[in-house]
Amino acid sequence: MDNPTCFGDRLAAACREKKSAVCVGLDPRWNSLPESVRSGVDESNPEQVAQATEMFCREVIDATSEAAPVVKPQAAFFECLGPAGMAALYRVIQHARRMGMIVLLDGKRGDIGSTAEGYAQAYLGAESAWQCDALTVNPYLGDDTLLPFVHASQEQGAGIFVLVKTSNPGSGFLQDQTIGNGTVYQRVARTVQQLALQRCGESGFGSVGAVVGATYPEQLAQMREEMPNAWILIPGFGAQGGTADDVRHGFLNGSGAIVNSSRGIIFAFNQDKASQGSWQEAVATAAADMRDQLAAAMGA
Amino acid sequence: MDNPTCFGDRLAAACREKKSAVCVGLDPRWNSLPESVRSGVDESNPEQVAQATEMFCREVIDATSEAAPVVKPQAAFFECLGPAGMAALYRVIQHARRMGMIVLLDGKRGDIGSTAEGYAQAYLGAESAWQCDALTVNPYLGDDTLLPFVHASQEQGAGIFVLVKTSNPGSGFLQDQTIGNGTVYQRVARTVQQLALQRCGESGFGSVGAVVGATYPEQLAQMREEMPNAWILIPGFGAQGGTADDVRHGFLNGSGAIVNSSRGIIFAFNQDKASQGSWQEAVATAAADMRDQLAAAMGA
Repeated sequence: MDNPTCFGDRLAAACREKKSAVCVGLDPRWNSLPESVRSGVDESNPEQVAQATEMFCREVIDATSEAAPVVKPQAAFFECLGPAGMAALYRVIQHARRMGMIVLLDGKRGDIGSTAEGYAQAYLGAESAWQCDALTVNPYLGDDTLLPFVHASQEQGAGIFVLVKTSNPGSGFLQDQTIGNGTVYQRVARTVQQLALQRCGESGFGSVGAVVGATYPEQLAQMREEMPNAWILIPGFGAQGGTADDVRHGFLNGSGAIVNSSRGIIFAFNQDKASQGSWQEAVATAAADMRDQLAAAMGA
Repeated sequence: MDNPTCFGDRLAAACREKKSAVCVGLDPRWNSLPESVRSGVDESNPEQVAQATEMFCREVIDATSEAAPVVKPQAAFFECLGPAGMAALYRVIQHARRMGMIVLLDGKRGDIGSTAEGYAQAYLGAESAWQCDALTVNPYLGDDTLLPFVHASQEQGAGIFVLVKTSNPGSGFLQDQTIGNGTVYQRVARTVQQLALQRCGESGFGSVGAVVGATYPEQLAQMREEMPNAWILIPGFGAQGGTADDVRHGFLNGSGAIVNSSRGIIFAFNQDKASQGSWQEAVATAAADMRDQLAAAMGA
């Protein structure tokens, strides 16, 4: 029933197939990588660091692709390795696609019209340079600056997630401020809902979604209500304090949300040093546990 | 007198030395590049396109480094060429540094704390992977998310320019909204001024600046007044409609602002097809003309 060219439907199908709403956040901070990945690497050599980082990410993907429909590489941690890091990012994206995961690049891009087109052309869809399925987008520059992303994503069967309410302590600085009869984040949410509804799939969800942090469960429930046709990407689970019970409010009939965990999954081996297993096993177990926790919280 | 480790002072010295406030925007859209640069390139081959783009950018730098203290590569137009484009960006940055230009990367990055640190580590300062002198930063996620950029830039003698009021028609969507006794962009401006003042150089300007579009001259004058210690990057000159008279309001005693022109300089050859000179000459002339226009408008 789902329309394969509609990102909302593609994401719904992927979550249904794996019975999971887990998004694996790939934040490969060098100092947190397993000893075995870092050993023998000359840290002053960006090529070597990037290569080891790529290997780590590929193994995380292999370990989590059964339990998680989505992987979210965080652009910053590849960009900080320079050009070699970007080449690694490209190969990591390719690997995730081959493993059947939906690739959501967390780049929080945003710029005015013609430059926004450049970003959209760079990242969105299988015909783009980086071939991502979706991209996070920052709305500060204005609603007009979202449109090039929306058009490109619809043409390419890709999606965007617009920052609405982020998970950090200072997110209230602008997002919570009152304008007119609502807040800044509500104004963004209204635009997201309109854009999602414009090209809504069979699943009930469009190709434009929102980012709403798990650390603000009340706002999450409110946002779920105000954006019934938008996928919600929920960061802040685990290490940042959000629980399965908190994120439950982001779902609509068990669908419509994906929950990101970065450190809690990819650095799971650091949390259980006593374990006899490999780091890959710890990562796989963490992803499966999170899938089960989310399912239990939703009474599935 | 200037402190070489303070970005505000470095930028002041560079503008003074070249008697110029021109920032050359490197937006190398492939279809707008000179025929001679594009000819013979297999457009389906990203390596070839990236290589030709790099050559074009290097020649623009060579042609403008006398008249312009600052070059502003727009990250989007390198990212849209994939990994090969990022390698080209790196080499373009290196070339601009060798030619004595201050490199301001227009990436409009922004993320929560530890990820913002990743971006700062990636781009800011001569020890970073990309070795930029400065970076544009998006404040939507909150004032706390600016701090990792501020700390990194101060340690590295680098700077940031925070988006305050952008030049696009839809910038009012959030930026102009009233919150408390001011607007969203004024709230951001107050934070920028505080951060600029914290580590202010001998020039009177700190390492934290603001982006304020030339297309809103009234707001520009107001912002100049409210941020007396912040450098202002003024986009929107030329092709977007801003004039030398409009941007005059962004300066303080002839300093404290740089004015960006992208298309008006780098694609100057397209505006004067009848010219007998090379495209490089057209670019050099456009940069020198803009320098002189700005000087004339300020009565210098």
